Amino acid sequence: MPRAKLSEVTRTLAAVCAGREAADLVISGGRLVNVFTREVLDGLEIAVKDGRIALVGDASHTRGPETELIDADGAYLVPGLVDTHLHVESAMVTVTRFAEAVLPRGTTTAVIDNHEIANVFGLDGIRWMLDEGRDLPLKVFLAVPSCVPALPGFEDAGAVLGPDEIRTALRWPGVVGLGEMMNMPGVLEGDVGVHAEIAATLEAGKPVTGHWSLAGVRDARLQAYAAAGIDSDHESTTREDAIAKLRAGIWVQFREGSTFRDVTALAPVLTEDGVDPGHCLLVTDDVHPETLVEDGHLDRAVRAAVEAGVDPLVAIQMATLNPSEYFGLRHEVGSLAPGRLADVLFVEDLRAFRPHRVLADGLPVPERLTGPAYPERAYRSVCLARTLTREDLRIQARGPIARVRAIGLASDTVTTEHLVVEAPVEDGAVPASVALDLIKAASIERHGGPGTLGLGFVKGLGLRRGAVASTVAHDNHNLNVAGVKDDDMLFAVEQLERSGGGMIAVADGDVLALVELPIAGLIADRPVADLARACRDLEQAYRALGSTVAAPYMIFSFLSLAVIPALRLTNRGLVDGIEFALVPPVAG
Amino acid sequence: MPRAKLSEVTRTLAAVCAGREAADLVISGGRLVNVFTREVLDGLEIAVKDGRIALVGDASHTRGPETELIDADGAYLVPGLVDTHLHVESAMVTVTRFAEAVLPRGTTTAVIDNHEIANVFGLDGIRWMLDEGRDLPLKVFLAVPSCVPALPGFEDAGAVLGPDEIRTALRWPGVVGLGEMMNMPGVLEGDVGVHAEIAATLEAGKPVTGHWSLAGVRDARLQAYAAAGIDSDHESTTREDAIAKLRAGIWVQFREGSTFRDVTALAPVLTEDGVDPGHCLLVTDDVHPETLVEDGHLDRAVRAAVEAGVDPLVAIQMATLNPSEYFGLRHEVGSLAPGRLADVLFVEDLRAFRPHRVLADGLPVPERLTGPAYPERAYRSVCLARTLTREDLRIQARGPIARVRAIGLASDTVTTEHLVVEAPVEDGAVPASVALDLIKAASIERHGGPGTLGLGFVKGLGLRRGAVASTVAHDNHNLNVAGVKDDDMLFAVEQLERSGGGMIAVADGDVLALVELPIAGLIADRPVADLARACRDLEQAYRALGSTVAAPYMIFSFLSLAVIPALRLTNRGLVDGIEFALVPPVAG
Repeated sequence: MPRAKLSEVTRTLAAVCAGREAADLVISGGRLVNVFTREVLDGLEIAVKDGRIALVGDASHTRGPETELIDADGAYLVPGLVDTHLHVESAMVTVTRFAEAVLPRGTTTAVIDNHEIANVFGLDGIRWMLDEGRDLPLKVFLAVPSCVPALPGFEDAGAVLGPDEIRTALRWPGVVGLGEMMNMPGVLEGDVGVHAEIAATLEAGKPVTGHWSLAGVRDARLQAYAAAGIDSDHESTTREDAIAKLRAGIWVQFREGSTFRDVTALAPVLTEDGVDPGHCLLVTDDVHPETLVEDGHLDRAVRAAVEAGVDPLVAIQMATLNPSEYFGLRHEVGSLAPGRLADVLFVEDLRAFRPHRVLADGLPVPERLTGPAYPERAYRSVCLARTLTREDLRIQARGPIARVRAIGLASDTVTTEHLVVEAPVEDGAVPASVALDLIKAASIERHGGPGTLGLGFVKGLGLRRGAVASTVAHDNHNLNVAGVKDDDMLFAVEQLERSGGGMIAVADGDVLALVELPIAGLIADRPVADLARACRDLEQAYRALGSTVAAPYMIFSFLSLAVIPALRLTNRGLVDGIEFALVPPVAG
Repeated sequence: MPRAKLSEVTRTLAAVCAGREAADLVISGGRLVNVFTREVLDGLEIAVKDGRIALVGDASHTRGPETELIDADGAYLVPGLVDTHLHVESAMVTVTRFAEAVLPRGTTTAVIDNHEIANVFGLDGIRWMLDEGRDLPLKVFLAVPSCVPALPGFEDAGAVLGPDEIRTALRWPGVVGLGEMMNMPGVLEGDVGVHAEIAATLEAGKPVTGHWSLAGVRDARLQAYAAAGIDSDHESTTREDAIAKLRAGIWVQFREGSTFRDVTALAPVLTEDGVDPGHCLLVTDDVHPETLVEDGHLDRAVRAAVEAGVDPLVAIQMATLNPSEYFGLRHEVGSLAPGRLADVLFVEDLRAFRPHRVLADGLPVPERLTGPAYPERAYRSVCLARTLTREDLRIQARGPIARVRAIGLASDTVTTEHLVVEAPVEDGAVPASVALDLIKAASIERHGGPGTLGLGFVKGLGLRRGAVASTVAHDNHNLNVAGVKDDDMLFAVEQLERSGGGMIAVADGDVLALVELPIAGLIADRPVADLARACRDLEQAYRALGSTVAAPYMIFSFLSLAVIPALRLTNRGLVDGIEFALVPPVAG
């Protein structure tokens, strides 16, 4: 049943308040967390009708013979959590499966920026997820991806989104803003297309969300970014950066993702600097399957804030009221008040913050959810132009020794190093070298486009045999492969293409591990726990091949991320991410 | 020059930040009040371009040969004040003249609810004011009046607005919400038309503003009001009512008007209960010409809050940031931050709070403003069906003594008493009686409608001779007249009709005082100071006629206000404002 709009039920809710109609549900015996006044209030009941809260107070006159009664038994009643910035694709599942995983954790509203599927399927992919989210107990809103492709001219993604596409998407119900504006140079330099996207969003009266990853840059450049109408950001890692943004009118999203966990570092903004917390939010950005299964979602961010000394009531505001206000959703979510959707968390202890019962739209969240099937086309996203041969992987050079560029990878960082390494030449080409920890990599266009591939070397992944490949390849999501032996690389590509996409590790003609992500080569319609297991197996396979870096398949998935320094590999070749130039694999 | 939309100038602002273009204006040497973080920050400059703030910080690189420089000389720099609920008509002037009066006081944004002119000219009147406000230095937004007429079935105003008219107005640029929903019974009882107006507003994504004047009522009725989507209110007079509303998700507007001054009573919500001030606002509602001239506007509310113990920075948030967020205007007004309109107040002392310099759109506010002329029709609003005679004013009764109803008026209250008085009958009718302080009153339809009039008696106004009349007659704004002698009453009506409307006092064929309000019979295109003088003269005339009540012409202007208890006079007759029934002047 589709969710009732407030405008459709105001008369019904008033009738319940007046006792003319019975409530569907009355919750008694809870300690209500009022996020407006920042109080805990005892002795209040919540009456629910048509999925919305009719009243908070004495609900005795709203009980009818059919009214369900819930005794909260002294638990705190907290509004469902609202996450204003996340990529569903990081959980490697469909929106439905994502909802299934996060609802029991207390996340009842998600503003997704489905940048990843947008790079594969453009507006169609964006729309599939939006439609999928329409009737879930999770309230799914969308910030339409602003940067597809991430670095025009240096990569071929599956789609190009410009101002026209943005304008189209902004008209779709549920689209509440523009997704993270990563093109900081475009904003600062006055790029016409970038500013046209922003203008379209402002004209639609919706927020333009940000991504200001220039750590420590708090000067006129930050002011320009804010002057362009961008008014949120989740990339602060220091309190100084966070405060500078708050002062400029930017709502600061304290991020607690799987890899990037900034809440502890940012908490002093509230606990020491004591600024008004009204524009501080908690977000997850990227949470991977294992984190979801083992630790939770936005509830985890609330816990992190409390552990860092933030008043639990403020931490809850940062995950409920403040997010709802940022996106203009105050009538819908973010508070336990008349008219709002009845998303209610039952929590024994506000500091431990482990929701033990979750209602969405006044109903218990189901253990399993089923969504609409993705179209056939979504499963056919790995479209290589042709079958590759060993010849395609040759990096030619004159010997006996060549100076080759290598992408330096390391644990726990997305940035890479731009290395130049002396390597032996064999038969007019430079092969991978275990001795030098130099493995070969290829980035192969897989969206049915030009069919080109780029070649280069990688150092630091630590493979000593076999090959790995992935269609999760931020942000263009081409098919990336790296390995010690060309035959293993070709085998990995072939196997991954056959499976419809995902992440794979092979050696000597055997598949050691395969995370199947057949939808767009990015996600699967399977329980998140399955993905968590598959990812653990994949990590083991990386280990078996010799890799010692932390989260090796994640690190590998960033190989193409040319918007981040220093050296990257896309289907057009090696990209110098500082000079923004294509550079050859052999430095000469 | 029309104001630039942010979406039109993001590239220009970015160019100023980067030093590619020069600023129009740089303000240095001020102490900046940052309303996001609630801090005072020294050493920052403000660079302005095209009326908007390009950057806050070091603006040295934005200075060009044409750049104007202002040295704030240590003054605090405060964002222009934003008033979210006011009736321009209370100032008795056009929007232009209102702007002229309030801008020097620091009010740079006004959300007007022009309920009064709407009762005379319907959508046309609403539109005239909206259009008039379009290019003023004052930012004029509009909450479209929701209750025209205020009490359908008991009065004839000049217009009837229903859901269709509301929907039309909601599409006009600058219309940001629905005006105060005074029809509380309609909301609670599920009136279809009332809820259709609310639904139209919610569908448009705009706030529904409230008017909850049931003091002390904080039970399920208040919850129903909030559940209907109404989320602001300016009628709280006690902290208990204010907190109950805040808890229900209603933004509480602390009112500091000319007559109703609630800030002192409500301040303990912040100073003692210590709730989150984010949803607390300051508003003026009704400010009369004398107050404007002598004491100010929203600046006066800030002073009242500070005097009541509210932290000055919180008081400023309540008049800047919080209002802008309530109406979704955060990119436009309410803060000194990149992208926002450069409305800047210079204030020596945050506690005394007397802006000594005001910039609107980065420019000094002119001493005199000229707006577009109102159409001819606006000046022909007093349309009586026919010339009245003494016969029309006869209140027939059988003698020698009749029991007549009288509207009991008193100082400093809008409510009236429903009195029954024994009065002598002469020639088959009851005349006014100075001895009994019983004066006769008539409410005459003046909008070119049915041309009916209602008759009754008034006690407490204290006239001992002459007559008074007014086309300011909340909320239907018919022509009301009251007097001791029928001839004076007829003369007052005739003079007021001839002048095009306003307020008048006469005696024995002489006009003692006349406040000419020729536009809609409500406002004039004259400086507010003129109106203040005219009103003082009118009050003196009331005194000369014997009236001793405070603000007698204001009290008289509420004679028809049938939504407020207990007895009122409209063109349909006496209205029992508790039972909601028409009652005869002679009680029988």
